[in-house]
Amino acid sequence: MTKSFELGNLNHVGVAVPNIEASIEHYRRVFNATDISEIKDLPDQGVKVAFVNLPSGQVELIEPLGENSPIHGFLKRNPLGGQHHICFEVENIYEALEQVYSKGIRVLNQPRIGAHGTLIIFLHPKDMNGTLIELMERPK
Amino acid sequence: MTKSFELGNLNHVGVAVPNIEASIEHYRRVFNATDISEIKDLPDQGVKVAFVNLPSGQVELIEPLGENSPIHGFLKRNPLGGQHHICFEVENIYEALEQVYSKGIRVLNQPRIGAHGTLIIFLHPKDMNGTLIELMERPK
Repeated sequence: MTKSFELGNLNHVGVAVPNIEASIEHYRRVFNATDISEIKDLPDQGVKVAFVNLPSGQVELIEPLGENSPIHGFLKRNPLGGQHHICFEVENIYEALEQVYSKGIRVLNQPRIGAHGTLIIFLHPKDMNGTLIELMERPK
Repeated sequence: MTKSFELGNLNHVGVAVPNIEASIEHYRRVFNATDISEIKDLPDQGVKVAFVNLPSGQVELIEPLGENSPIHGFLKRNPLGGQHHICFEVENIYEALEQVYSKGIRVLNQPRIGAHGTLIIFLHPKDMNGTLIELMERPK
């Protein structure tokens, strides 16, 4: 544990959706959203994603990519889509990992590069009030 | 519909929890969270809430209050707790209401004062990819 660890900004919420193009169009139509990223394929993670950028914070729309996508099970339980994860920024992912691990929280993966190009980890929802939490290094 | 409507900041994510004191302690212990509001009872809404304040954004912890709380059903389906809603800021709640209503989105309540002391509405999750979305007037 390092004393410098602290939770940073609420970076984004991840929303699993069955059809990312349709959801982007829905955000445009319903909310006049204009600042939406291109759709990006992340084959290593089995997802394609797009970000609805707000003045502060983002919504990450997530559609399964490939047959082994971890999102298929979620959409089977929630066919319309639903809230998938909450992402907080941290300064240093290894400090964060050491901190949460020392508190008995199960970490689902070794630090890996996420959709923002910085290191991320996911924490086990059963250790966090049923919420899947992503910690990501703040983009520089 | 008014042209000025636009989606503002990602204000907070709402997380339903079975025991708000325990969750506050958990956020303190696991994440070194220090800026956490007092617990506030909102009997009209059937909840008690506390906010974990981040440099940008908040986590709203929500525990049922009273026997008719709308959160009981959620916790029955999700005994550990879970992500309950996503809240975006808007400039004017009546403009937002008119906009989303004109797009065919079902609105769950007339504008009422929420936990931040400003007017809020909730949108039907079935019209928003399974996510319960709160729109709140930006606190002045």
